[in-house]
Amino acid sequence: MGIKLGANHYGKAETRVVAVRRHPDRHEIKDLNVSVALSGDMDDAHLSGDNSKVLPTDTQKNTVFVFARKYGIGEIEEFAIILAKHFVDSQPSVHHARVAIEEYAWDRIALPSNGIAHSFARSGTAPVRTAVVHYDGTKAHVVSGIKDLIVLNSTDSEFWGFLTDELTTLKETNDRILSTVVTAGWRHADTTADPHRADWGASFREASRYLLAAFADTHSYSLQQTLYAMGTRVLDHRPELCEVQLELPNKHHFVVDLTPFGLDNANEVFIVADRPYGLMHGSVLRDDAPDAGPAWS
Amino acid sequence: MGIKLGANHYGKAETRVVAVRRHPDRHEIKDLNVSVALSGDMDDAHLSGDNSKVLPTDTQKNTVFVFARKYGIGEIEEFAIILAKHFVDSQPSVHHARVAIEEYAWDRIALPSNGIAHSFARSGTAPVRTAVVHYDGTKAHVVSGIKDLIVLNSTDSEFWGFLTDELTTLKETNDRILSTVVTAGWRHADTTADPHRADWGASFREASRYLLAAFADTHSYSLQQTLYAMGTRVLDHRPELCEVQLELPNKHHFVVDLTPFGLDNANEVFIVADRPYGLMHGSVLRDDAPDAGPAWS
Amino acid sequence: MGIKLGANHYGKAETRVVAVRRHPDRHEIKDLNVSVALSGDMDDAHLSGDNSKVLPTDTQKNTVFVFARKYGIGEIEEFAIILAKHFVDSQPSVHHARVAIEEYAWDRIALPSNGIAHSFARSGTAPVRTAVVHYDGTKAHVVSGIKDLIVLNSTDSEFWGFLTDELTTLKETNDRILSTVVTAGWRHADTTADPHRADWGASFREASRYLLAAFADTHSYSLQQTLYAMGTRVLDHRPELCEVQLELPNKHHFVVDLTPFGLDNANEVFIVADRPYGLMHGSVLRDDAPDAGPAWS
Amino acid sequence: MGIKLGANHYGKAETRVVAVRRHPDRHEIKDLNVSVALSGDMDDAHLSGDNSKVLPTDTQKNTVFVFARKYGIGEIEEFAIILAKHFVDSQPSVHHARVAIEEYAWDRIALPSNGIAHSFARSGTAPVRTAVVHYDGTKAHVVSGIKDLIVLNSTDSEFWGFLTDELTTLKETNDRILSTVVTAGWRHADTTADPHRADWGASFREASRYLLAAFADTHSYSLQQTLYAMGTRVLDHRPELCEVQLELPNKHHFVVDLTPFGLDNANEVFIVADRPYGLMHGSVLRDDAPDAGPAWS
Repeated sequence: MGIKLGANHYGKAETRVVAVRRHPDRHEIKDLNVSVALSGDMDDAHLSGDNSKVLPTDTQKNTVFVFARKYGIGEIEEFAIILAKHFVDSQPSVHHARVAIEEYAWDRIALPSNGIAHSFARSGTAPVRTAVVHYDGTKAHVVSGIKDLIVLNSTDSEFWGFLTDELTTLKETNDRILSTVVTAGWRHADTTADPHRADWGASFREASRYLLAAFADTHSYSLQQTLYAMGTRVLDHRPELCEVQLELPNKHHFVVDLTPFGLDNANEVFIVADRPYGLMHGSVLRDDAPDAGPAWS
Repeated sequence: MGIKLGANHYGKAETRVVAVRRHPDRHEIKDLNVSVALSGDMDDAHLSGDNSKVLPTDTQKNTVFVFARKYGIGEIEEFAIILAKHFVDSQPSVHHARVAIEEYAWDRIALPSNGIAHSFARSGTAPVRTAVVHYDGTKAHVVSGIKDLIVLNSTDSEFWGFLTDELTTLKETNDRILSTVVTAGWRHADTTADPHRADWGASFREASRYLLAAFADTHSYSLQQTLYAMGTRVLDHRPELCEVQLELPNKHHFVVDLTPFGLDNANEVFIVADRPYGLMHGSVLRDDAPDAGPAWS
Repeated sequence: MGIKLGANHYGKAETRVVAVRRHPDRHEIKDLNVSVALSGDMDDAHLSGDNSKVLPTDTQKNTVFVFARKYGIGEIEEFAIILAKHFVDSQPSVHHARVAIEEYAWDRIALPSNGIAHSFARSGTAPVRTAVVHYDGTKAHVVSGIKDLIVLNSTDSEFWGFLTDELTTLKETNDRILSTVVTAGWRHADTTADPHRADWGASFREASRYLLAAFADTHSYSLQQTLYAMGTRVLDHRPELCEVQLELPNKHHFVVDLTPFGLDNANEVFIVADRPYGLMHGSVLRDDAPDAGPAWS
Repeated sequence: MGIKLGANHYGKAETRVVAVRRHPDRHEIKDLNVSVALSGDMDDAHLSGDNSKVLPTDTQKNTVFVFARKYGIGEIEEFAIILAKHFVDSQPSVHHARVAIEEYAWDRIALPSNGIAHSFARSGTAPVRTAVVHYDGTKAHVVSGIKDLIVLNSTDSEFWGFLTDELTTLKETNDRILSTVVTAGWRHADTTADPHRADWGASFREASRYLLAAFADTHSYSLQQTLYAMGTRVLDHRPELCEVQLELPNKHHFVVDLTPFGLDNANEVFIVADRPYGLMHGSVLRDDAPDAGPAWS
């Protein structure tokens, strides 16, 4: 009985590129972390060490910089599609490209004393915007998203009526802190491999905004329920999207028991725990969502 | 057109449990990080905030500690199966459990002065052993593995004859450092849901040993080739395993150009780069490997 | 010749406390990480294992929570002084307390749909505010500060005319990106041990603002010069402060050489390097600054 | 009243250099992280942006690589002295150099199939060896040490008889787990600026060994007592050393209360907490230890 090569991919991960667009009165910056993964006709490389079909990961890195210079960096979905198409369309041995980009947001430091606006501080409100593109020569699956967004509701969160067994000791609560670090992706229904086919920027801003609003104004009976509300809110308002996936760790804030010290604690003082933590993962999608293909891998 | 809940799971992640077995002459310790994820009949929880089918993640945490006390912690595959079976078999609303465990290895500090051997230092050679079990009420898919193992070959690694395009600047090399951080998993063919069905410890030790040996004695023409050799070596010697998956970042060690200083550098002085880095992912499997099901998710 | 105990301290580090102030129309949150270190008459504890003068670190943790409940958490300098005074003034064996606090800032998620404003997202503009208080029974040295603030100027930064030796290969530049992660502390001249003696909040906001402005509008000939300008700007405007210390890593953004690809690169495309990095540390202080004592330790 | 520049230093941090010594039958590797900090006549650089006395940090990086090639990398104390002397002795504006080195240990992967022994796995038992050298043109203060060494005693640790106040709730214990992550430095009494003046390797191995043994065979009444025992043990056996400083976080392992489930727990099952944690810092030194000067800064 033989042994064979299964699914595989390779590429250059975490190329950190910053591009400056130098307008007369102001600069704009784009700050990205680009990871490329290619697959295709790679059996020889694995089995016999014949690299004739392997485009070096060093070349993939060069490509990121050259394309940043030649085409500029627009929206990250656009840049990812351009890169993915390049690798598959130019190399017969490459059948599939996955390009994942993280974008770090910067706020402007506004100063009348600066002739050219060129000063920035890293932003926290939309800390990391993400895009993952899969391209197979025909279709471009696009998932946009956000990560590292820390949010907290100091009330309007309950957890009770849950299943109990003989190992359950948790008390029910009608008022707790709900806090999480949002990692979310939303899938675009259209898979046309045209980098300019959508207003990616507007789509991202609106999807993020609805996500955040749903976290904030949902009276929560569980983090699962909040998760579903967040996904639904985005789909309700963004027809170009067909699915939202969320990963939400429950950053536990426990009410400190102050009774040994003769004090009450009406949800005023909490200890924040690191580990363990609850972890929720869920998908919310339209009934008629097209097949996801490799979009989430 | 409606919106619906897609795939989802929830659970308690990263419960850090240490168990001490107190023999008269020596102690043994088990140091684990246990993550549980459950799925099943969770629509109500998401859609209406009805938690009556939700076993709290706090209870899952309690279960880890209680089972550590009641049954002891043997091999991590065994402990993971016991936990996974408990959640699915005892709760009708839970249809699937994924239990992932990391085990941190400790070396003994041997001292004649210690009456009871009770002193340990964290080991580096086998830094983190892993097990991921999926159980659906019938089958238990088991993937064992290792992570965070940093290895390096100072020679016997080449990279040349690769594909070039107009953006390729990489020079060919007949001698380079090859270094990586091994994350590997190997799938057990048998899916019988019996915690004691295998000698998990021997299987782990031997699979790890073959993996390491193949890294060390393969004359490498690419990290892909090394990856395939590592996977093959394990399958060649361990009939109970049917597939190996490896993720190998290429920790680039670049020869420093010392010609500006009138010095040669015959592969003696290297700079270690952090980012970007090559990243290889691949599966090696038997022709007749059974379907992986959810094993790798 | 004997062996003796030298300087020592002990305490509870990183107590993570969140306090919610529940107003009828809105909630306010304080999110702190509190580290206590005590020293004094600790010879017996070290030499003979007699703990009768050791206040457990667990008690120190309790104290943080109890004081958060009893006194509320105001400005972090105030809370640190209250805690430091408590330990020294209540325990004869404790002669010196160091209380270091990190505060994580949150922005409000403003929504008309929320009856009570209770939703927050972690802020990035002023990511971590810090305070370190040393109290010895008489004086309270206070250093306020900021950390993890990432800033970048896309122009108005030069580096040339530097010292060269036979190992120097760096090219001079008249235009580069200057980026750093600011860790700064500023020392208050007054050491009166009164928690309410200053408007700590206004002092912090203004010092931070001047620091940021000086980074942004200084035409820089070196990161050292920018460092000095930042410190000077703060002292120029804040008479209550007598010294500023800054640690500024140079987050190198290197212009990518695109000439192999027939392209110029007029400071448009950069690669961000992780390591190694330049690291500047400096103090800027008034001629008549009082002695710092233990303030910076 | 004027503003002035206070203490300052600058340099290149975290240059990651790997050196391979290629013997006919085997290779040896040295894997270092080198950080240089220089100070001296740096007023002009800060005040006016005149860089004529500033040796670029890029040159410092080059120096690390060139010296690795020219002189080889022996013991890290030796390499640090050579570097520190170079910067101060060759540059009139540099009055003081601090060179800090971390060395990562590697174990050999021994295989009969390897003609040349060239395969390594990162070691865990002595994870990071450290050296910090200060040189001012005359004296070379040397502190050797270790970091990131995780150790645990599963018994022979007590904590009772401690000071209590009205906020103390901690229970006394006669048997607990004691675990810590050792960061230790030991100061060499001799400050002769000769890189070859000592057998640095033997000194390190023996000091580390005694440190570990003292942790293991001290019956502990507090982590402070263990700390003092560890320092004393090293000084008792190594006459070339005059002071040991230790930083020991108390990695709390709490016995899980299993009484709600009808189970006892005789120190068998523990939960490992992340934060908060106790943190001990202490110095142990000889009565006649020479002045430390800048050694510990």
